Amino acid sequence: MQKKGILIVVSGFSGAGKGTLMKKLVSEYEGYALSVSMTTRKPRENEIDGREYYFVSREKFEEVIASQGLIEYATYVENYYGTPVEYVEEELKAGKDVLLEIEIQGALKVKEKFPSALLLFVMPPNIDELKNRLKQRGTESDEIINKRLKRAGEEAAGIEAYDYIVINDDLNECVKSLHQIIAAAHLTPGRNALFIEEFRKELKQN
Amino acid sequence: MQKKGILIVVSGFSGAGKGTLMKKLVSEYEGYALSVSMTTRKPRENEIDGREYYFVSREKFEEVIASQGLIEYATYVENYYGTPVEYVEEELKAGKDVLLEIEIQGALKVKEKFPSALLLFVMPPNIDELKNRLKQRGTESDEIINKRLKRAGEEAAGIEAYDYIVINDDLNECVKSLHQIIAAAHLTPGRNALFIEEFRKELKQN
Repeated sequence: MQKKGILIVVSGFSGAGKGTLMKKLVSEYEGYALSVSMTTRKPRENEIDGREYYFVSREKFEEVIASQGLIEYATYVENYYGTPVEYVEEELKAGKDVLLEIEIQGALKVKEKFPSALLLFVMPPNIDELKNRLKQRGTESDEIINKRLKRAGEEAAGIEAYDYIVINDDLNECVKSLHQIIAAAHLTPGRNALFIEEFRKELKQN
Repeated sequence: MQKKGILIVVSGFSGAGKGTLMKKLVSEYEGYALSVSMTTRKPRENEIDGREYYFVSREKFEEVIASQGLIEYATYVENYYGTPVEYVEEELKAGKDVLLEIEIQGALKVKEKFPSALLLFVMPPNIDELKNRLKQRGTESDEIINKRLKRAGEEAAGIEAYDYIVINDDLNECVKSLHQIIAAAHLTPGRNALFIEEFRKELKQN
């Protein structure tokens, strides 16, 4: 059976461990590609152009918007963030499952343009664990942590828009579970229309 | 997170290997229960009451119909076949995933009564394999085989009503895949409404 790539949108609370999870998934299993976003914010130390983000100027970003080169984009703290469409479409065509980390508004925009996209929401096992993880980063002030918890409350309102929730309790288990969900998603009738059609045709010939 | 049982309806062409698959799933993984149908047909050699079917009289069957004791029922070659509701509901309540082997019309009736039921359609990898399996049973005449292939053509028309197709190529792989699909199904927001609600409540308390 021919495997067609699925566009996978991963959202979740800050501190839920999305980034680590996706990197581990890509490194442990074959067939995945990690989409890289484009942004106008300045690279942080250790960030490499084309790995964390494509870092571009405001002018360049607006050119790409104008030429319909983005699946979605948003502004955050006066910077643009967006998903270049070209890479995503190339990898999907090549049969790869393309992972996209994005917040809820972006996720819904992606779903509009790619109705067969799979929307996953990563959650910590409980609220205390969420707080612990935000604190353990160490680099954040109480004010920022509280802001993130407030933001989490807003994002939580949209969970029903997602196809699956992924509980990030044990990282290894969670990566396995994530992979299982995606493997299962390949088996919906809608994603196997060609195989089903062929089967029907051959049944008729009897 | 609390696990609530899922009602799993398994359909598929005769010769697709549904029965073997389900028995293997139940014996290899925990948390499953196999629903046993009720019928008015006579037991075959080696069939045991309460294992293959509950074998009952026509009168008894019609009593159970009258008392709303069946999720669905149908007649086939002048015999009744039906799914007793009591066992299914008990096992679901106990957190078990209940497996139900049934053809497409029955599957759709179950979905009406249990909208959160998961509908799976088992298929052989290709049409030649389907024919081979029907022949290897050895007990069937060409006429019966052709009848079954014709029936397969009719059932194939309804595949889109199912949530997932399960390709039964290698039995071990297929059982694993079946289990993965069901594990993934436990992670939809709809099946975790309580967990999500609790999480939201706690987020608001911050």
